Amino acid sequence: MRLATLNDGTRDGRLVVVSPDGTSCAPAPVKTLQEALENWDAVAAQLAAVTDYPEALDMAQVMAPLPRAWQWLDGSVYASHGALMDKVIGIDKPAVDWPLMYQGVSNKFYAPTEDVRMADEALGIDFEGEFGIITDAVPMGTSVVDAAKHIRLVVQINDWSLRALAGPEMKTGFGWVQAKPPCSMAPFAVTPDELGDGWQDFQPNMNLRVHWNGKQFGDAHGKAMGYGFDALVAHAARTRDLVAGTVIGSGTVSNENFREVGSSCIAERRGIEIVDEGGAKTEFMKFGDTVRMEARTADGATPFGAIDQKVVPA
Amino acid sequence: MRLATLNDGTRDGRLVVVSPDGTSCAPAPVKTLQEALENWDAVAAQLAAVTDYPEALDMAQVMAPLPRAWQWLDGSVYASHGALMDKVIGIDKPAVDWPLMYQGVSNKFYAPTEDVRMADEALGIDFEGEFGIITDAVPMGTSVVDAAKHIRLVVQINDWSLRALAGPEMKTGFGWVQAKPPCSMAPFAVTPDELGDGWQDFQPNMNLRVHWNGKQFGDAHGKAMGYGFDALVAHAARTRDLVAGTVIGSGTVSNENFREVGSSCIAERRGIEIVDEGGAKTEFMKFGDTVRMEARTADGATPFGAIDQKVVPA
Repeated sequence: MRLATLNDGTRDGRLVVVSPDGTSCAPAPVKTLQEALENWDAVAAQLAAVTDYPEALDMAQVMAPLPRAWQWLDGSVYASHGALMDKVIGIDKPAVDWPLMYQGVSNKFYAPTEDVRMADEALGIDFEGEFGIITDAVPMGTSVVDAAKHIRLVVQINDWSLRALAGPEMKTGFGWVQAKPPCSMAPFAVTPDELGDGWQDFQPNMNLRVHWNGKQFGDAHGKAMGYGFDALVAHAARTRDLVAGTVIGSGTVSNENFREVGSSCIAERRGIEIVDEGGAKTEFMKFGDTVRMEARTADGATPFGAIDQKVVPA
Repeated sequence: MRLATLNDGTRDGRLVVVSPDGTSCAPAPVKTLQEALENWDAVAAQLAAVTDYPEALDMAQVMAPLPRAWQWLDGSVYASHGALMDKVIGIDKPAVDWPLMYQGVSNKFYAPTEDVRMADEALGIDFEGEFGIITDAVPMGTSVVDAAKHIRLVVQINDWSLRALAGPEMKTGFGWVQAKPPCSMAPFAVTPDELGDGWQDFQPNMNLRVHWNGKQFGDAHGKAMGYGFDALVAHAARTRDLVAGTVIGSGTVSNENFREVGSSCIAERRGIEIVDEGGAKTEFMKFGDTVRMEARTADGATPFGAIDQKVVPA
């Protein structure tokens, strides 16, 4: 099933079940997605039983599926992206045998068509197209095998970044605060079973098509993660209980053949330019720029709908 | 005024105003501290008007003042601590002209006497005695001068750390996830005005007395921050709006004369041993160990009450 959250004037919105064709919806038996995640087994059964969709789905009212979360942990597990970014940033990271992950701001996820407020154009405004999952409550110390069972929903995310701040913050070892403003989420949160072949080995088996100012910029394939989301959940839960509604991201989707398929962020394109041409040519986003991101399965379905946003001054 | 949150079986508890002598309390006009922070000016006036404290304060029912928060950002602004830790971890951080800060797990703050569940004794369990503040909503781009006005409450925190994981995570540049389980908070959140001389230049002008297994371990003075909390709030708000109820920490309290006054974490003691004696002798915490932390003003007052906890296996 696919779920959406509609703006009803409250911060958490109201949860609806979306019809298979995406044009209509049905009210959920609980008010919010957070409530559903806190009692998932019981509520999911009720959500799955919905067959009648009495409301037209007004896309202008669609918020992020989870408009705010108690926890957002973002991985970075596409190896081709990581290797290039280390080169661009000029950081000499040790090789590690675990998935890289940082904790980011989670009290707001932008709605899919909401304008994105940025502090300063000079900070290197960049998008990062990603996949993500949402868990129910995960006990500390959960194994990878058991962690897989806690992946309740799959989502599509833009992890906004400010590149002028990212390198300097990273070099302190403390991770990112200023470099990572709130993220955006695509309209629909989707159960893994609903994705069919689009979900394999706890990875998204689909492309992430990115358009910047109306021009295609990237179309990387999702199933190139060095660690599946099962491993990411277990990593996050090693020393803490994960609260229901924890959102975990994949990091920027990237493929080894990025010169052919394009990139899911500008920094990666700039990295390629530095390697191939001796210097970055593509500039970061300007106020008024738009970015559209839409994951597509092999049969052309777009299960999460599209993120389509404009960057504006704060 | 001093505020506390009592366990009423809900996750956010119920807010009370604590009497000057700390023995009794009065119900607040809003249910939770989060609600108060979301409408601070109006609610604070009502809280400040309380003069009658009809309930005996049952310390066994005291939760963290904010039992869960939408955001926890921890600074590291005691220079004597940072310099020693870099040496111990073996990281060569560039000097930066901003306050170091990471984002940590915030969906749970331990109650002041709650047992602390840890995954594994072998991970180097350590306490970190800190001060912290709680803000109301802070708009993106707020100046240091204006940020000061958003410091609504001062708190005392134990930022639990797992040292075997801290160095390796730090070297990736992504900051800490596994190395930082949930923190603990002392019983009372205190308005800055209530602290009198105990709050100067947006810093705590008091000592943080730390006892490990009943023996005094440290008594460092709080007013040695390289940046005041006004600067920490402004730093955090540079590229994001801060949600009401954002908690910001000082990092481990530390003084240049740590050999005399002691330390607020074990890692610092070990660092001193490495420098002075060629190797660390003090081991990290074991299951069953206790730590007590209590800030004291010059006149012997203990405005936040005490954190007094035992470490147990998860």
